[in-house]
Amino acid sequence: MIETKTMSLAEIEDLAFRALVAAGTTEDNARPLAVATAATEADGVASHGLAYIPIYCEHVQCGKVDGTAVPAITQPRPSLVVADAATGFAHPAIDPGFESLMPMARAQGIAALAVRNSYNCGVLGYHTGRLAQAGLVGIGFTNAPASIAPSGGSRPVVGTNPFSIAAPGENGEPVIHIDQSASAIARSEVMKHAREEKPIPVGWALDADGNPTTDPAVGLKGSMAPSGGYKGVGVALLVEIMAAALSGATLGIHASPFSGTSGGPPKTGQFFIAIDPEASAGEGFAQRIADLAAAIRDQENAHLPGDGRRTKRADAEKNGVRVSTATLARIEAFTG
Amino acid sequence: MIETKTMSLAEIEDLAFRALVAAGTTEDNARPLAVATAATEADGVASHGLAYIPIYCEHVQCGKVDGTAVPAITQPRPSLVVADAATGFAHPAIDPGFESLMPMARAQGIAALAVRNSYNCGVLGYHTGRLAQAGLVGIGFTNAPASIAPSGGSRPVVGTNPFSIAAPGENGEPVIHIDQSASAIARSEVMKHAREEKPIPVGWALDADGNPTTDPAVGLKGSMAPSGGYKGVGVALLVEIMAAALSGATLGIHASPFSGTSGGPPKTGQFFIAIDPEASAGEGFAQRIADLAAAIRDQENAHLPGDGRRTKRADAEKNGVRVSTATLARIEAFTG
Repeated sequence: MIETKTMSLAEIEDLAFRALVAAGTTEDNARPLAVATAATEADGVASHGLAYIPIYCEHVQCGKVDGTAVPAITQPRPSLVVADAATGFAHPAIDPGFESLMPMARAQGIAALAVRNSYNCGVLGYHTGRLAQAGLVGIGFTNAPASIAPSGGSRPVVGTNPFSIAAPGENGEPVIHIDQSASAIARSEVMKHAREEKPIPVGWALDADGNPTTDPAVGLKGSMAPSGGYKGVGVALLVEIMAAALSGATLGIHASPFSGTSGGPPKTGQFFIAIDPEASAGEGFAQRIADLAAAIRDQENAHLPGDGRRTKRADAEKNGVRVSTATLARIEAFTG
Repeated sequence: MIETKTMSLAEIEDLAFRALVAAGTTEDNARPLAVATAATEADGVASHGLAYIPIYCEHVQCGKVDGTAVPAITQPRPSLVVADAATGFAHPAIDPGFESLMPMARAQGIAALAVRNSYNCGVLGYHTGRLAQAGLVGIGFTNAPASIAPSGGSRPVVGTNPFSIAAPGENGEPVIHIDQSASAIARSEVMKHAREEKPIPVGWALDADGNPTTDPAVGLKGSMAPSGGYKGVGVALLVEIMAAALSGATLGIHASPFSGTSGGPPKTGQFFIAIDPEASAGEGFAQRIADLAAAIRDQENAHLPGDGRRTKRADAEKNGVRVSTATLARIEAFTG
């Protein structure tokens, strides 16, 4: 039984903000991260919500992320924004980037934001969802230190590299909202099993020679299994090309780890594309998205990506979120 | 033992062109399809090369595709080209679309081509490869009649919907070139097993209730298994949003079949994105792509997507391609 305390979304944002600032983050940088933390808790993704705040604070203190960084925004071409996160948090670089990106996508039809010298961006779907709320189709890519080996190989070359797409409906809320990594399972699940000394199922991870393993410690020294074999590697490569190669960020093979305190800033990247559906599809876009969503929702037990988080979000806005008291204790070590 | 005849790429293009024109395709429409057919044979993708020409010819004759269509190109926004294929072939709509898209991507940083009222575009990677040859990162999506069911459901809602990305190197040839469908296996493989009355492995297809089957006929009436379970459905939905919803094309749930002669034009779509790597990444792009490719090629037996087709292409340009004489006989039924 995990002890929990119910908190409102405003309380969660405030707590995250105070902890980040106490650890040495500027208020300008702490705010967007605190807002995202509350939204992530609302969506029911507890693993990337308040539980991450002590890690963020530790990373500010050890210099893995620069809490005082000032992101630099440039516009090298009419449809392209580049945000240099300056080894700071991703969120305060994405915020001004999106301020340029959104009107640009409407004017140009399609536009992109490349983020470099960045850091773990938390839940990728949080960012694409904001583009959908602005009436745009939002697509996102973010790379991570290498943990997946190529087909036929055994040494990691790409991270668990998620992609996300959010397609807006009539009211601007995302109707179809996909956010998935390229690995069969999240790396954090294998780490959790290692901490608890539990075996992992076959198909989650591979040993250093590329063979299946049920030992999580062996898997962490080997590689993560891609989802769907070589096609999962293909998705991870797509993301690596977008988020690292095209963003001018650091490849997963060269990046320092996201976890722990050593190695300095990972300097990984994000790439976002925003498209105005009215420009490319005319008036039929919302109907097509509604028809596609209905074809899935009409089947009993079928799962439409995005519905789970939406249901949780509605509940959280009304009733708040239950947060582990152990997590709160770790955060209060920073807020004092 | 299959009887074959060795043909040069020029001979393949010429044969494809003559058959298409004999079936009622205008020369303007036949040429880009014939060029693509030769390139597809060169890449070793025989299933989508000359073997498709009798099907294309039959589809022109039955009206599933309009061989005399004149595509309409518009530019609704500065970074967006829309090609209405007018129920003709995809290739003659993509050709003038790319002529606008390529300089637009260089000027704007990123640009897109939406293709609607279209048809099966053959090998998707052929098109993205052309963008890479122009020094751009090319991304492509194309939708197909629904054959994959959602997670937890049993009725198809999305097609085997491939995506492709081609990342250029220093010399403009694609270095990393991914082209993969969202299903565990191509639907044509299941159809082949059905014709040959051979069982299919578990994991290729599902029956009408969503249960695994080894009977290809049952699988064809049920659904194709997505690659990697729900994450394969997610990739297929990404492609459906781009190629159909955003292009203003017909959703896979509403499209007539690509195979057979009934149902009229499928009116499905394509969506291409072209990005100028110099604009978003500066000078480091080619080095990053080279580093990523080397990390894969340096591992014995590891597979870099694109290397297989590149090797075959080099051989085909020198030595020609061996073509099944049975296929040639089917084509010669049209050329007379």
